[in-house]
Amino acid sequence: MSKMLVVGSVAFDTIHNAQGTHARVLGGSATYAALSASYLAPVQLVGVVGRDFPDEAVQMMRDHGIDTAGLEIADGDTFHWEGRYTDDLTARTSIRTDLNVFADFHPKIPEAFLHTPYVMLGNIHPALQMEVLDQIDRPELVVADTMNFWIEGELPLLRQMLTRVDLLVINEEEARQLSGKHHLRQVADALHTLGPKILIIKQGEYGAFLFMNEETFSVPAFPLPEVLDPTGAGDSFAGGLLGYVASRGDTSAETLRTAVVHGSALASFCVEGVSVNRLLDIDQERIAERVEAFRHLVRFTPPETR
Amino acid sequence: MSKMLVVGSVAFDTIHNAQGTHARVLGGSATYAALSASYLAPVQLVGVVGRDFPDEAVQMMRDHGIDTAGLEIADGDTFHWEGRYTDDLTARTSIRTDLNVFADFHPKIPEAFLHTPYVMLGNIHPALQMEVLDQIDRPELVVADTMNFWIEGELPLLRQMLTRVDLLVINEEEARQLSGKHHLRQVADALHTLGPKILIIKQGEYGAFLFMNEETFSVPAFPLPEVLDPTGAGDSFAGGLLGYVASRGDTSAETLRTAVVHGSALASFCVEGVSVNRLLDIDQERIAERVEAFRHLVRFTPPETR
Repeated sequence: MSKMLVVGSVAFDTIHNAQGTHARVLGGSATYAALSASYLAPVQLVGVVGRDFPDEAVQMMRDHGIDTAGLEIADGDTFHWEGRYTDDLTARTSIRTDLNVFADFHPKIPEAFLHTPYVMLGNIHPALQMEVLDQIDRPELVVADTMNFWIEGELPLLRQMLTRVDLLVINEEEARQLSGKHHLRQVADALHTLGPKILIIKQGEYGAFLFMNEETFSVPAFPLPEVLDPTGAGDSFAGGLLGYVASRGDTSAETLRTAVVHGSALASFCVEGVSVNRLLDIDQERIAERVEAFRHLVRFTPPETR
Repeated sequence: MSKMLVVGSVAFDTIHNAQGTHARVLGGSATYAALSASYLAPVQLVGVVGRDFPDEAVQMMRDHGIDTAGLEIADGDTFHWEGRYTDDLTARTSIRTDLNVFADFHPKIPEAFLHTPYVMLGNIHPALQMEVLDQIDRPELVVADTMNFWIEGELPLLRQMLTRVDLLVINEEEARQLSGKHHLRQVADALHTLGPKILIIKQGEYGAFLFMNEETFSVPAFPLPEVLDPTGAGDSFAGGLLGYVASRGDTSAETLRTAVVHGSALASFCVEGVSVNRLLDIDQERIAERVEAFRHLVRFTPPETR
């Protein structure tokens, strides 16, 4: 069991969906990733919140075994994002983004976190992602997330950052945008040349693909009877993924395959509730049950063995 | 090893794609399904062609063990479809559809085919699909394909047909259209109430889902390095699926799971070539290798067994 570090946003979200409005609920990439990972490995969190951030939320993270020594409390308000989902939850539009204290955020890694072997760089400015790597010892595995905003606006910095990343987690559409290719196998080949030896391409409601050396692994999204709120699903995926890797303490293809399933399991819980609500309501046994349900979902008997 | 019956279109296709124009190549739902199935089980074909249909194409089907006693040769020209694909092959537009002899087609099932246990009703008018069922003995399994054209234009007949079908193969988008639901689990529940006990929802380049009793099974699309022509992929899927079921001679969930993988394997070969070219270039060993590649693609080690 190794420790992991999560750097990213801690935020309030105001979410409009078919059920109504959920005002100023807990959100942020680091929040989702850290909570998801906390069921699998010890998590160290680095981020920033404002004076308006409730002590109870910090305490809740600590109750999940998350080390919040790197959660800076700055003068001002916490990052706030407001968005609206379509009724089928497949698309969303941002209504407003108030960066607040996040606008001047520069991650400061506490002394005690400098040697953490597994590191998750949440979806923040690539310059900030590199500031983290500049401060810490070379970890066993650096995982980074990114998005179209940085691909379009900060491509040179993003490419520089990618040369320092072992595992890139990226949405399919953005992977196509970054690679200029369509078919996943070609997308993966192109993205490998940018640096990351390991690629995980997220396909939203269709699951995820892992490309690693000559290995390819695919997992579907779990066919839930009901999805309430997709916010944070990708961050929960990344948290569950790295949490499992840290719990095993190795980065073999075998571990990465099962890690992708754990990421998918945590993402499937995440979307069952609004904000982090469902993620607070699970335990290791529930996660193990869902991983087993994934195994049953994709299992088949090869003809020759029957 | 049981026999199977395929009823559907036999056609010429003119296909425009990034590579250029492929004029009057062999196509049709029954052609793709029968050729794909022929590697797995004895196939009986029912369809219609015109006087312009080459003897060599009929002979090629016979060489694949397909019984063409039900392939009617009518006065006039063979069904001809012309369409253009986008460069990424994810969408296509029809340029022209000349039904020709297919306009007056009424399937006539030869005496020798009346007791076939496994029946594939290709994507044709639901009235014609029911004409087939009216003629034959109750099979072990009736599989039907359909499309938005019939959902929009012939809903009452389509619903009547569905009450007589055991297994519906349908595209995800059309499954949503027919059910009025979005999330697959809800789509499946709604479609089950229309009749089919077994549902296979095809997700194109994302794979397919099987819903059967309380069982759910998912298989990804094979991540090919290159796709040349998606025409006939769905029909090849259905043919490979039912071919495997016929080869096993049972309709258990275990058989259906592996059948879905065989359908996916045949579809993955289909798209590697233009028209049926790649389907003519494979053998049972190639199919077994690809099924094994699918197994490797989705395999992971549950944590508790390590």
